[in-house]
Amino acid sequence: MKLKISQTVLPLGFQASGVSAGIKRSGKADLALFVSEAPCATAAMMTTNAFKAAPLVVSIRHLSSGHPRALVANSGNANCMTGKQGLADALAMAACVAHGLEVVSGEVLVASTGIIGKPLPMEKIRAGVPEALAALSSKGLADAARAIMTTDTFPKVASVRAKIGGRVVTVSGVAKGAGMIAPKMKTATMLAFCFTDARIEKAALRQIAGQVFDASFNAITIDGCMSTNDMAVVMANGCAGNRAIKKGSPEAAAFSRLLRSICLSLARMIVEDAEGATKFIEVRIMGARTGALAKNLAFGVANSNLFKCAMFGSDPNWGRIAAALGSVDSRLQEPLLRIALNGTPVFKDGKPVAVKNRELLKGRHIVVDVAVGRGPGRATVYTSDLSYGYVRINADYN
Amino acid sequence: MKLKISQTVLPLGFQASGVSAGIKRSGKADLALFVSEAPCATAAMMTTNAFKAAPLVVSIRHLSSGHPRALVANSGNANCMTGKQGLADALAMAACVAHGLEVVSGEVLVASTGIIGKPLPMEKIRAGVPEALAALSSKGLADAARAIMTTDTFPKVASVRAKIGGRVVTVSGVAKGAGMIAPKMKTATMLAFCFTDARIEKAALRQIAGQVFDASFNAITIDGCMSTNDMAVVMANGCAGNRAIKKGSPEAAAFSRLLRSICLSLARMIVEDAEGATKFIEVRIMGARTGALAKNLAFGVANSNLFKCAMFGSDPNWGRIAAALGSVDSRLQEPLLRIALNGTPVFKDGKPVAVKNRELLKGRHIVVDVAVGRGPGRATVYTSDLSYGYVRINADYN
Repeated sequence: MKLKISQTVLPLGFQASGVSAGIKRSGKADLALFVSEAPCATAAMMTTNAFKAAPLVVSIRHLSSGHPRALVANSGNANCMTGKQGLADALAMAACVAHGLEVVSGEVLVASTGIIGKPLPMEKIRAGVPEALAALSSKGLADAARAIMTTDTFPKVASVRAKIGGRVVTVSGVAKGAGMIAPKMKTATMLAFCFTDARIEKAALRQIAGQVFDASFNAITIDGCMSTNDMAVVMANGCAGNRAIKKGSPEAAAFSRLLRSICLSLARMIVEDAEGATKFIEVRIMGARTGALAKNLAFGVANSNLFKCAMFGSDPNWGRIAAALGSVDSRLQEPLLRIALNGTPVFKDGKPVAVKNRELLKGRHIVVDVAVGRGPGRATVYTSDLSYGYVRINADYN
Repeated sequence: MKLKISQTVLPLGFQASGVSAGIKRSGKADLALFVSEAPCATAAMMTTNAFKAAPLVVSIRHLSSGHPRALVANSGNANCMTGKQGLADALAMAACVAHGLEVVSGEVLVASTGIIGKPLPMEKIRAGVPEALAALSSKGLADAARAIMTTDTFPKVASVRAKIGGRVVTVSGVAKGAGMIAPKMKTATMLAFCFTDARIEKAALRQIAGQVFDASFNAITIDGCMSTNDMAVVMANGCAGNRAIKKGSPEAAAFSRLLRSICLSLARMIVEDAEGATKFIEVRIMGARTGALAKNLAFGVANSNLFKCAMFGSDPNWGRIAAALGSVDSRLQEPLLRIALNGTPVFKDGKPVAVKNRELLKGRHIVVDVAVGRGPGRATVYTSDLSYGYVRINADYN
């Protein structure tokens, strides 16, 4: 009994805003704030990059010490590779919000996206935070989504509502995509923030978030490049009044489905909006020895430049799919391999199948189905093609 | 006392030829033959791809059983993903050459490059082999190099000569590049064949070839895509008459330097001739904990699409270098990181250094120097940029 709600709303007890603090030279919104009236059970996934941006370092610290109530995020500056000053600035950004909310700094998470290696303009942040606080509203989700955009061409918002344990629970999320554009030193950062009024035990939330993020934000790739600022968070404030969801319960499964639908929607929007993308590609692997291997195989195909260029050209070049698969797992066997493009087999029984439909890959959506054997491992990865547009955007070319 | 010889020649006791057998529709040379008057100590490196092309399967078998005397290679068809027929065809191709030379099939190595998933046109091979045999000449090296070209824009040949153990020894090699172009299903195959008249024990040759191939052909990347047909071979026929070079001897070290100079020359030519390349990029890592980690870090940078696009745009975007490094090794530390572009520091002491020279990366040759710590590990990897040309060539775009 899941209800996709047409208007994206915040769960009970949450407010959000997005304002322009002048960090972006364009004057567009660049400061987003999310606030809960109650402390939140929270789960997060951060980039594993060695050069984690300062806001991630601060957020990891704050996550380990307590129950956050707020999240502040800026676009236009990544606050990354900025040394001790960067760390002090990220802490000050949290403190600034905490001061306005009359909570402690440790209850505020911080995120940034934008230029690497430039100090955060703190006077602009300090002036922007009170504005963002003043603009807080239970209808502010879309504004906040706009304020974390960089090269995104549309804001990414999703909400869903369902009954869990007799209470209506809402899960909402915003994300920004793996975009990168003209101002130098930008990284392709993925930010995703989810909010729910469900009451859920922290251990249950962390387990569910781990699985859901893995099947959504960790199942997309634009160019295989990992950012220093990637961050996905889910905050649950319990305002729906349901009995706390416990690990392994039917309610946990129901909540997991809700969170999954939001995260998958947001992840797909990120791929839809990938730099220069002309195709949305789904790579589905089955029959692998394990799920982990299936995911590696799917990423092997999805990150192959040769495959991605072929997709840009609507070219049913299955040889590049086979080559990518074979480079990931040297134990694959040719006679067991089956490849289908948009439902049409192109390789099976150890032999190519001639493609008769010349329009096979002309559409925007391409599904690559691969069976590599008879194992139980399956995985799906979403990606885009590699186009002139991608090169143009990322070459900052005059 | 190494002598780079201006005219590329074959070592004593070797002959080569390159003819047009009609496999390529263009009518260009597509069948190369290399023959030694004596059986050869031989070392080879083959792709680790699961879907090894049939000629590789046959060559691996022949290498394990004896001392090859000949190598036959065709372009225009990869004989890959061609099942049992492909295997029979590769064997027949070896048998055809063996018959003409009056040796056994097991003394003939086979290589192919071109379209994946199409049967080898055996009638053309059978007609071409006698022509190639008739054309054999001690001056045929360049002809043979031309016959293995696919999208290469120039033939890749190198020769070097030096005294080892009082005798003049020659090492020569040909290669074809990681190119891929219009006719569908082509893979980006690297072929490299080296020949020497040095007498060398097989164990010594294999050890040296392993190291040299690793530092040359295994240290280049165009797009990170591994072919099903990659193959590097060195054949030593002993015709120089030197006392057999033993493992670990000073002569082995001298021979290693010769082979290395040839393989590095060929590897660099492959990168110079990469599809759509406008830059030749050297990524040098030092200070890593181990040499293997240094190489992974170098490949991490060299295979980053974001980095490669920045280089295409002559953009000194060190943030993308840092992000690529950090995604390979999560233990790297920002304060120890130093990055220089063409000799100009852009990040050190935990801080960016402003780039003043706007022309810094305008030239064709770019050197990226990275120090990641104080460890002993170093590695150099060669690569090209990611350009519109690469996308155009690989999208087969109309």
